[in-house]
Amino acid sequence: MRRLINNPYDVVEEMLEGFCKAHDKHVKLLENDGRVVVYKRAPVKNKVGIIIGGGSGHEPLFLGYVGENFADAAVIGNINTSPSPEPCYNAVKAVDAGCGCLYLYGNYAGDVMNFDMGVEMAAADGIRVETVLVTDDVASSANIKDRRGIAGDFFVFKIAGAKAATGADLDEVKAAAIKANDNTRTMGVALAAATHPSTGKPMFELEEGLMEIGMGIHGEPGVRRGKLQEADKVIDEIMNHILPDLPFSKGDEVAVLVNSLGATPLMDLHICFRKVAQILEQSEIKIYRSFVGAYATTMDMVGMSVTLMKLDKELKELLDYPCDTPYCVIK
Amino acid sequence: MRRLINNPYDVVEEMLEGFCKAHDKHVKLLENDGRVVVYKRAPVKNKVGIIIGGGSGHEPLFLGYVGENFADAAVIGNINTSPSPEPCYNAVKAVDAGCGCLYLYGNYAGDVMNFDMGVEMAAADGIRVETVLVTDDVASSANIKDRRGIAGDFFVFKIAGAKAATGADLDEVKAAAIKANDNTRTMGVALAAATHPSTGKPMFELEEGLMEIGMGIHGEPGVRRGKLQEADKVIDEIMNHILPDLPFSKGDEVAVLVNSLGATPLMDLHICFRKVAQILEQSEIKIYRSFVGAYATTMDMVGMSVTLMKLDKELKELLDYPCDTPYCVIK
Repeated sequence: MRRLINNPYDVVEEMLEGFCKAHDKHVKLLENDGRVVVYKRAPVKNKVGIIIGGGSGHEPLFLGYVGENFADAAVIGNINTSPSPEPCYNAVKAVDAGCGCLYLYGNYAGDVMNFDMGVEMAAADGIRVETVLVTDDVASSANIKDRRGIAGDFFVFKIAGAKAATGADLDEVKAAAIKANDNTRTMGVALAAATHPSTGKPMFELEEGLMEIGMGIHGEPGVRRGKLQEADKVIDEIMNHILPDLPFSKGDEVAVLVNSLGATPLMDLHICFRKVAQILEQSEIKIYRSFVGAYATTMDMVGMSVTLMKLDKELKELLDYPCDTPYCVIK
Repeated sequence: MRRLINNPYDVVEEMLEGFCKAHDKHVKLLENDGRVVVYKRAPVKNKVGIIIGGGSGHEPLFLGYVGENFADAAVIGNINTSPSPEPCYNAVKAVDAGCGCLYLYGNYAGDVMNFDMGVEMAAADGIRVETVLVTDDVASSANIKDRRGIAGDFFVFKIAGAKAATGADLDEVKAAAIKANDNTRTMGVALAAATHPSTGKPMFELEEGLMEIGMGIHGEPGVRRGKLQEADKVIDEIMNHILPDLPFSKGDEVAVLVNSLGATPLMDLHICFRKVAQILEQSEIKIYRSFVGAYATTMDMVGMSVTLMKLDKELKELLDYPCDTPYCVIK
């Protein structure tokens, strides 16, 4: 194992303690629930509460995006495990300002089950909570509703957070999040598994020199395993899946996210971005704004993903809307 | 090899092409020199030009900090190799606004030699260029002037960039950079080497299960190699070197940077930060501001470093001074 941790069973609690200390200008741990990270100024008056969450190990997802004009709370599960219903509910109680709340998370069965129980518990208190699932992973299913949520989470959360910050009501915020998700497509490639802190072993086997195109961030099967190819060929293959899927067409404007799964360096990400930009230029698709870095990881997993979000005037304004969180600041 | 690149001899040029495209709101490649990344609005009127640089492979160092109120240019070398004198000089020509320029870089022999030639070439044109070397790596020598520059680069560059943005003259900016460097100490730990893109092999050997405390970011020898220990013990050892070195004392206020060398995830960094914060609290040293993430890497190297900068009123104001660059935005 090449990780710096203490007792493997304490990684989430110790991470949360360090995180809330390091970023104490933005966030705090909820007093009555150690698995909810909340924005220091939440509840924000007259604003829909934005609650994101999921398993740990994807940092800066989810807690890194809690702050001003983005998420009001993140609900924290164990490594690769959904949070329990109680923290989902406690997050609502902590951030609801009387305008209702929106749950946003990637489409995984455990998350759906537990967040849905949070919806019911909140309803019993008379608080309306709506849900939008992120389903951006093109590789995970032909049926869009069955797709998993991966790095596209970042775009969908950002749009919803900004829409809520404008003072929109819950239906409007939900509609913006749905629009963002409908226009977002992602596909990744894995070169090596993350090290699970509990076992000290890779979470799956992927021999050096191989890659798996379309693999999920928890090691879910992708579309093809084969010999590692050069970056341009890998990006070609990924873009050949993403572009026709929406489809993205000549004249479109897009936001691009080239995301590290954890251990792939900025050098490689920018070499990949170069090819993404070339393909988009050839397709006469205009890049409006780009993000390159580690936005949705699986700890020290090696690999990357490409996300495109097709933009209209509203989505551009919301994407550019200023925010201030530990891992995303937009001026 | 678990890297996503094309021809290994093209990695720097392809990275630069991707970088300048992805971050084209902030930076551009200098027209007459493909190894100089400049701020789009440089030269900035009535401002000292801040020029940083060094070998590639440390991203987001150096080019990620080019932008508003930070660096005006980054000079780009090959992997782990100093830039040549010509781009050092061309950067001066590109960003000097008649107020002179300050070169800032880590103390490595090749960088000193080539940037010094840039100083001479600029002097022949009547442009005054001063230099401040970053020497924060406690592990690299008992003699401070012989020490290497590592993640402390980030603090020294930030302070100088902010001071220049206030309209201070070259002597004042240089004095602020020297003050920042004098008050900054770093030490790291390596768990695995980066993969050199040219060879596809690790840059040095460090068997799984071992660590080297104090190792430099190019694999320079550290103070001790031994069995990998738990995070708290590693941080204890690092802090035992850093704290007495300045020394940092009861009542001091510090900025903290817990930095990934590339492949160590945010989870581990925050677990390490937790222990740093505990030790500082026990020492009655107050944390003023914290940074946790990949600020100075060696591609996919595994490991981390801790940097402390002792602050006074001026350094606090300059650290907080707003800036807008691809990899550091402060509102």
